[in-house]
Amino acid sequence: MTQVSRRRLLGIAGAGVALAGAGAAAGAGIDHALSAPEAQAAPEIVPFHGEHQAGIVTPAQEHLHFAALDVTTKDRAKLVSLLRKWTDAARRMTAGQEVVQGGAVGGAGAAPPGDTGEALDLPAASLTLTIGFGPSLFDDRFGLAGKRPAALADLPAFPKDNLDPARSGGDLCIQACANDPQVAVHAVRNLVRIGFGTTEVRWSQLGFGRSASTSTSQVTPRNLFGFKDGTNNLKAEDPAALAQHVWVAPGDGPDWMAGGSYLVARRIRMHIETWDRTSLDEQERIVGRAKGTGAPLGQSAEFDPVDLHVGGADGEPLIATDAHIRLASAENLNGARILRRGYNFVDGSDGVGHLEAGLFFICFNRDPRTQFVPMQKALSAKDSMMEYVEHTGSALFAVPPGVTETGYWGESLFA
Amino acid sequence: MTQVSRRRLLGIAGAGVALAGAGAAAGAGIDHALSAPEAQAAPEIVPFHGEHQAGIVTPAQEHLHFAALDVTTKDRAKLVSLLRKWTDAARRMTAGQEVVQGGAVGGAGAAPPGDTGEALDLPAASLTLTIGFGPSLFDDRFGLAGKRPAALADLPAFPKDNLDPARSGGDLCIQACANDPQVAVHAVRNLVRIGFGTTEVRWSQLGFGRSASTSTSQVTPRNLFGFKDGTNNLKAEDPAALAQHVWVAPGDGPDWMAGGSYLVARRIRMHIETWDRTSLDEQERIVGRAKGTGAPLGQSAEFDPVDLHVGGADGEPLIATDAHIRLASAENLNGARILRRGYNFVDGSDGVGHLEAGLFFICFNRDPRTQFVPMQKALSAKDSMMEYVEHTGSALFAVPPGVTETGYWGESLFA
Repeated sequence: MTQVSRRRLLGIAGAGVALAGAGAAAGAGIDHALSAPEAQAAPEIVPFHGEHQAGIVTPAQEHLHFAALDVTTKDRAKLVSLLRKWTDAARRMTAGQEVVQGGAVGGAGAAPPGDTGEALDLPAASLTLTIGFGPSLFDDRFGLAGKRPAALADLPAFPKDNLDPARSGGDLCIQACANDPQVAVHAVRNLVRIGFGTTEVRWSQLGFGRSASTSTSQVTPRNLFGFKDGTNNLKAEDPAALAQHVWVAPGDGPDWMAGGSYLVARRIRMHIETWDRTSLDEQERIVGRAKGTGAPLGQSAEFDPVDLHVGGADGEPLIATDAHIRLASAENLNGARILRRGYNFVDGSDGVGHLEAGLFFICFNRDPRTQFVPMQKALSAKDSMMEYVEHTGSALFAVPPGVTETGYWGESLFA
Repeated sequence: MTQVSRRRLLGIAGAGVALAGAGAAAGAGIDHALSAPEAQAAPEIVPFHGEHQAGIVTPAQEHLHFAALDVTTKDRAKLVSLLRKWTDAARRMTAGQEVVQGGAVGGAGAAPPGDTGEALDLPAASLTLTIGFGPSLFDDRFGLAGKRPAALADLPAFPKDNLDPARSGGDLCIQACANDPQVAVHAVRNLVRIGFGTTEVRWSQLGFGRSASTSTSQVTPRNLFGFKDGTNNLKAEDPAALAQHVWVAPGDGPDWMAGGSYLVARRIRMHIETWDRTSLDEQERIVGRAKGTGAPLGQSAEFDPVDLHVGGADGEPLIATDAHIRLASAENLNGARILRRGYNFVDGSDGVGHLEAGLFFICFNRDPRTQFVPMQKALSAKDSMMEYVEHTGSALFAVPPGVTETGYWGESLFA
């Protein structure tokens, strides 16, 4: 590692050192956190191989680049070849290496470089790359129709959806998360480059400021409504809950998905200008938590258990019947929970005087039909927060299990 | 400072500690850098007050949120009142404080909170806020027509410009730079909120991965062509060059601009897919530097002086007549130089299969008519890089001088 990358490592990506330490430990099934000096020495590399793909229970990094792609060939062999090439590239990039040895400066004569170069001086920054297969991949192009999991059912239309087809769907997705945005962008850009002639970008989304924690080692971040978000999220340190709510088990559906999960992405525009003109009392009533501490209404600290039954002076429950945290609670949803892994976004302005800002919601669940879908039905029908948000994009992907050291992404589906 | 913000401070924003130390020193006219222990203890606050606005020679932070706004009132007093309110808010936010004391949780009854809250747990992250006045502000609405500097002449149309009016112009601009994107976004969002009824957002741009250094303390970053960018930039440590090329001097034009500068913003879409299919030799020929080291062609190290006269075996100059660094060089432009302060961007995808990526170019110069304009004329007419880029947005702003402890942004113009 050069002087340059060490300076970046100890600087911008400093958080990644500690987080990646936890991530590496989680990924490898080691149950102790690295001590501070060990963490400082760690190369902030999240292991790529494992039973599950990285980037799901890995402690959420600070930056996201998410891309949905369409396959432009009908040649199954070309698609499989691409998945192999992508896997090789991902192995190297998640280890902080170029796509190929000497890639950026290794081209000779008329050959373009094998790496685009903008991450040359940067560390791995806890990069994870996670791939998924959309429902449309299981049409008649690649002989996969018989392998489509029942759980990969198209999402229903939800009340008040205002979806843009140009921000929805996709045959494939790549979720790149890292503690340096340039590292995430570099990874997606190079996979897109490798896919030239086989895939093209359908839509793409950058995110910053993770909007949930996925590890007890992480501080709960705030979303653009200014509230702590994801306090009661599923966490990497609770493998029993992950087995129940996140990981597809053998027997859940087709064998190829065992160890996988289902990713739901929703681009949620927040009407922040309207929100910002709402009183604090009303904001807290809508969310069901105190804005400052994050404590559930009726409690005093962020992690106090939510009690939906505490009554106020007026006889009504303190956490309103249309409060966000009530409707999204496991208690309201027959025990259903999801692993949230979204990011805040600002995509410029909307052309009529406002910032185009919101939450790029990502969740992982074992079966969207019994987890995300009923949750979103409840929220879209009753959540008082719906007045301030608008779902403008939607996609669902089957995320296959992890990759072995000699395997490739999706091998269980295609082999 | 809470445990939470310390964790963030020592983590994500770690780089900011050292950089802000340098920034603080530069801003205060102190010519020694902080030692490492001092830098670690520094609260990464860049001083807001001074002869010049912060955010120009401040060591370039890692993240940008830039917003251009239009004034929706014709009431000069309302505009001045807004500039006073903005200045008060900027003083607090750049110090890591809420917009008003207890803002996010201080609203009572029907009053909306005085701060939107999403930066509650975050440190100052070297936030700088820099304001500018566009040519359109000097029309007949506010009685400013007689105060328009000649140097604030509308930019000419350059060959191959493909400007989107929705990404161009603006009465006002706010440049927010920080080492945490959420801090920059929070600052712009709150200024926009305070401006409700007086201003509205015309366009807005996020950037990551600064594409130039503005201090000798910084490593040269890489742009999305994969090349080191800004090696020969003007630096904070060269006050004589800044006085010559950046700061407006008394006598240059109207008195109110003395100590100010002119900001040019250009949204430059990079056709990265085409670039990525170009050979390394061709890429280096176009730029005029080696991709790996950043050395000028014919030299061996990044900071070796550029020699435009070294000839190759074929008798042609090693740095081609249409190479980017030749055309942009002071030697080619009668000594003209600019202070570059741009950022890389990815704004999703373009709808036809590609990433929408590029460079959000920002520069500061003393007189665009003799600096940016001739440079861009030379580049747009001859630069071989033009085949791979497209200018899609453009704006020019007069950046007034710095603010005193009791003053407000633009006081010299309005008082």
